[in-house]
Amino acid sequence: MPMPELLPAVAGLRLVDHHCHGVVPEDLSRPAFEALLTEAEGASPLGGSLFDTQAGFAVRRWCAPLLDLPRHAEPEEYLARRAELGHAEVTRRLLGAAGLGGLCVDTGYTPRPLLSPAGLARAAGAPAYEIVRLERLAEEVAGSGVSAGDFAGRVRERLAELAYAGSAHERRAGAQHAQSGHPAGLARGGDGRVVGAKSVAAYRAGLALAPERPGHRDLTAAVDRWFTGMRPGVPPRLAQEALHRFLVYAALDLGLPVQFHVGYGDADVHLSRANPVLLTDLLRATAPAGVPIILLHNYPYHREAGYLAQVFPHVFADVSLATHNLGRRAGALLAEVLELAPFGKLLYASDAFGLPELYHLGAVLFRHALSDLLRAGLDEESWTERDAVRIAGMVGSGNARRVYRLPG
Amino acid sequence: MPMPELLPAVAGLRLVDHHCHGVVPEDLSRPAFEALLTEAEGASPLGGSLFDTQAGFAVRRWCAPLLDLPRHAEPEEYLARRAELGHAEVTRRLLGAAGLGGLCVDTGYTPRPLLSPAGLARAAGAPAYEIVRLERLAEEVAGSGVSAGDFAGRVRERLAELAYAGSAHERRAGAQHAQSGHPAGLARGGDGRVVGAKSVAAYRAGLALAPERPGHRDLTAAVDRWFTGMRPGVPPRLAQEALHRFLVYAALDLGLPVQFHVGYGDADVHLSRANPVLLTDLLRATAPAGVPIILLHNYPYHREAGYLAQVFPHVFADVSLATHNLGRRAGALLAEVLELAPFGKLLYASDAFGLPELYHLGAVLFRHALSDLLRAGLDEESWTERDAVRIAGMVGSGNARRVYRLPG
Amino acid sequence: MPMPELLPAVAGLRLVDHHCHGVVPEDLSRPAFEALLTEAEGASPLGGSLFDTQAGFAVRRWCAPLLDLPRHAEPEEYLARRAELGHAEVTRRLLGAAGLGGLCVDTGYTPRPLLSPAGLARAAGAPAYEIVRLERLAEEVAGSGVSAGDFAGRVRERLAELAYAGSAHERRAGAQHAQSGHPAGLARGGDGRVVGAKSVAAYRAGLALAPERPGHRDLTAAVDRWFTGMRPGVPPRLAQEALHRFLVYAALDLGLPVQFHVGYGDADVHLSRANPVLLTDLLRATAPAGVPIILLHNYPYHREAGYLAQVFPHVFADVSLATHNLGRRAGALLAEVLELAPFGKLLYASDAFGLPELYHLGAVLFRHALSDLLRAGLDEESWTERDAVRIAGMVGSGNARRVYRLPG
Repeated sequence: MPMPELLPAVAGLRLVDHHCHGVVPEDLSRPAFEALLTEAEGASPLGGSLFDTQAGFAVRRWCAPLLDLPRHAEPEEYLARRAELGHAEVTRRLLGAAGLGGLCVDTGYTPRPLLSPAGLARAAGAPAYEIVRLERLAEEVAGSGVSAGDFAGRVRERLAELAYAGSAHERRAGAQHAQSGHPAGLARGGDGRVVGAKSVAAYRAGLALAPERPGHRDLTAAVDRWFTGMRPGVPPRLAQEALHRFLVYAALDLGLPVQFHVGYGDADVHLSRANPVLLTDLLRATAPAGVPIILLHNYPYHREAGYLAQVFPHVFADVSLATHNLGRRAGALLAEVLELAPFGKLLYASDAFGLPELYHLGAVLFRHALSDLLRAGLDEESWTERDAVRIAGMVGSGNARRVYRLPG
Repeated sequence: MPMPELLPAVAGLRLVDHHCHGVVPEDLSRPAFEALLTEAEGASPLGGSLFDTQAGFAVRRWCAPLLDLPRHAEPEEYLARRAELGHAEVTRRLLGAAGLGGLCVDTGYTPRPLLSPAGLARAAGAPAYEIVRLERLAEEVAGSGVSAGDFAGRVRERLAELAYAGSAHERRAGAQHAQSGHPAGLARGGDGRVVGAKSVAAYRAGLALAPERPGHRDLTAAVDRWFTGMRPGVPPRLAQEALHRFLVYAALDLGLPVQFHVGYGDADVHLSRANPVLLTDLLRATAPAGVPIILLHNYPYHREAGYLAQVFPHVFADVSLATHNLGRRAGALLAEVLELAPFGKLLYASDAFGLPELYHLGAVLFRHALSDLLRAGLDEESWTERDAVRIAGMVGSGNARRVYRLPG
Repeated sequence: MPMPELLPAVAGLRLVDHHCHGVVPEDLSRPAFEALLTEAEGASPLGGSLFDTQAGFAVRRWCAPLLDLPRHAEPEEYLARRAELGHAEVTRRLLGAAGLGGLCVDTGYTPRPLLSPAGLARAAGAPAYEIVRLERLAEEVAGSGVSAGDFAGRVRERLAELAYAGSAHERRAGAQHAQSGHPAGLARGGDGRVVGAKSVAAYRAGLALAPERPGHRDLTAAVDRWFTGMRPGVPPRLAQEALHRFLVYAALDLGLPVQFHVGYGDADVHLSRANPVLLTDLLRATAPAGVPIILLHNYPYHREAGYLAQVFPHVFADVSLATHNLGRRAGALLAEVLELAPFGKLLYASDAFGLPELYHLGAVLFRHALSDLLRAGLDEESWTERDAVRIAGMVGSGNARRVYRLPG
């Protein structure tokens, strides 16, 4: 059977993409495009083109028509047309087609120049907010000439400046937000403001973080070890369990929602250390504070993430990155994470990085997955039309607005 | 497409619910109801109502009509009608609708007063048997003033009394049971008799139990450590690897089938320590004894449980608790566990606790899942009608009767 | 709906079965047949017949007609007809029906006499190549009277002889092969030639292998420990992390593709030690060499295997063994592994052992799974007919020919 039409309630959603990145403001060669398409570093002679993946077929299926090509245009044809239009126009078309109502941009990963949050906002026609990457902030502080003794305090100050700038902006805008369980009075919003923090502990020390806030002695010892090991000319790299944990608590103390990279990523991640269940003790310890923690990506541990989102009141999950990489299987993914995750606990995100195609793919595949799931439930009489409309609104934007206290 | 009718062979099954609990004999407020609906402690302002879960929609879909409401009644409407009918009538209706042929009630978890096995039996119109929770029995013995030196012997005696009472009852009833590989002559049956034991090691020391029976020295040392750490006024809590293991062997020695909590549970479980593959060495060591071991719940490790049920002759599995929590996804769950688990190794259970709704949901969702799976196999010509009828009987009650040596 | 017809592009494929074993050249009793049907050691009184499994129903559905019986013949009827035809005729029919274009036979597991690669080739009507089992080769060397000091060198020599024999044979045949990233000039091919190696580390020390080639000191120490522990009359058994690793590197150094047993197996495997993500560090370390590593079976960690196949340029995966054991669920399995695995990274294999039925089941279930997946993608317009034909060719034989440098 052909792919069914979207339910109107899903087609009309202005999605909040609560975790995404900049795109490359350049025209791209085929190797460069393939290198950004999946989590592989690039095509290999042994494995063949990365267009021969679910993500590759999804580009040809969903993005080609936006560049005025027929569906399923061949890769060479697609890339030629892409170059002809130029990256700026391609970005405008693809981000525009995503139908976004807001973006929360992780600005902490910039191996190459990327379009800024403001540029993304213009292309998408929607406000962009910022997610601060905790380890990068800490590494910048560490590289600034601060002493080991002043490191922790300086990190807290810098984070507070960012958080309060967001908060102050929000207060100036006079926005009214429903209280939704956040402890501090840090209502935030507005373009480019910091609305959350992100930890990449999964890529460094792993997610088996101890539950408690690191004590003064442990923290001092970890900072000393780190600082002692630094070498001139080598950028500092934070990968100490106690320091990841310190950063997470520093953000939570300020009422900043904390995102964790979980599961699927590139060849630098080790899935054994990136399973969300490793966070269980930390999640238990942080529940009373009532500040949201959001598990990103999660594949292939998305069922585990759904469990954590059910049993911990402050835990949320998404299936970003996996959604566009799974292509036509995005529906299976969404159905699985929603087995246990309450509908009030799932967020939409693309985790697009580099290619504007991934903004569009994330959105269109998520819409189809959500629409198919809601329609199947309607057909089987699992819920009513009114319920389906309400769920679509929660998952597509309401939950994200509540978590990050976004206006609208 | 609408949900298909049940196959007659499935609709007519009197299911044996081989693992369930008492229900709360009180009318419930909305917060109290939501707190019992899923494995979350309760609704949170961050996450919204727990009616917005698969389990919540399943209640509105499947239970509302039994309270004379239309399908999909709103939560407030449902709870008002529930209060109007009163808990006793609601329990009678929902347990009656489950279509049970027997219940094996775990009586070892009673954070609040619950309906007794006899009361459940009356409401369900089916005999109730008892599952003794090993850790609770041990804690009762430990709290009774026994000395450390007498502890192990006293536990064995108490367990034997319970097992032999079941056995004696059965012998008095003159029931004839086919020999099915049990080593001891402990045929059991009849209302309220102990037919099995349960371990909650997954919640305490974790499932990575050493394979062998603990030796006298190890056992004595573990008991001494436990007893030495006890404080007056604090109820004893067993959470020592060697003691969980001692209890498991004590039950197996008596020919009592042993259930293990595995996987999914509330926020107190740590899934890293609750994966059934952690039991591999113990399962290998206990296979020769030929006493059944049953892996409960298992989600999201139900495929692993299916594997263990295939390769170990005495291992069985169910997908209880997950069945009603997954709601309309129960069919996906059943299909996955039955990828490797032989049809002779899967049991039905609800793991209902607190809400009588969960008895009905477990049963109705399992029936639909089983019927859909069997019908799909018939449509694809994977098996014959005769096979389908036989499988339904095995999975729905025959396997459980064989494992626990129940009459009928 | 009935099972759909195969797509012509899939029906016509001559599959390369890149990992399989010999079959038992004897007529089999029912217990002997059941003991070879799944990964269980045999039927148990507690669990019932192993015909009541997905694999059992698949035999009755798919193999009975090849023995001139109606679909779904009862087990007794099936086995009687099987005996009547005799094992040689049954093997000829079932291997012939698999539609193979080549077989890579793991000759290192022979708990009983099995049909040789040449015999399999005759029955299948396709060339058979050989996969050398590394641990067995090492154990044969260790048992040959070699000194500990000469062990490593002798293993390398023996492996090189096998690899170069394959290579020389290939050169004599004058075959022309496209260069596909292999570092060494070891083009191989031809009946019975060694085209790859296999590690069963998962069954012994586990897959958590250190990444680097073991140094001289570590290797010498491990060999010394092993040799010191050997007892006269007891066959040597290799199960030391450093020695598994040495063997893997020895094969890779010769340009021999290395297969790893991963995940699902019999009761001797411990899934905790057989998860493919445990290989992450080793895969990272071996990527630069560009010699293929193939993850076999993988269930229930096939999604993890798909991830590894995506992010590491030299990593490939299959879903052998699981395909026939899952029976009608083989389609779900294939869809899941292909969520992340590029289409250029998935291979077909049966992992058939003992029963010729498993050759046919692996092939027919894989064909239906692949055909259904491709057709669903066509129906939803996820790819074109031309793409579907190309994917079928890659997955069914092209990828295997590239990995093992097979002719044709």
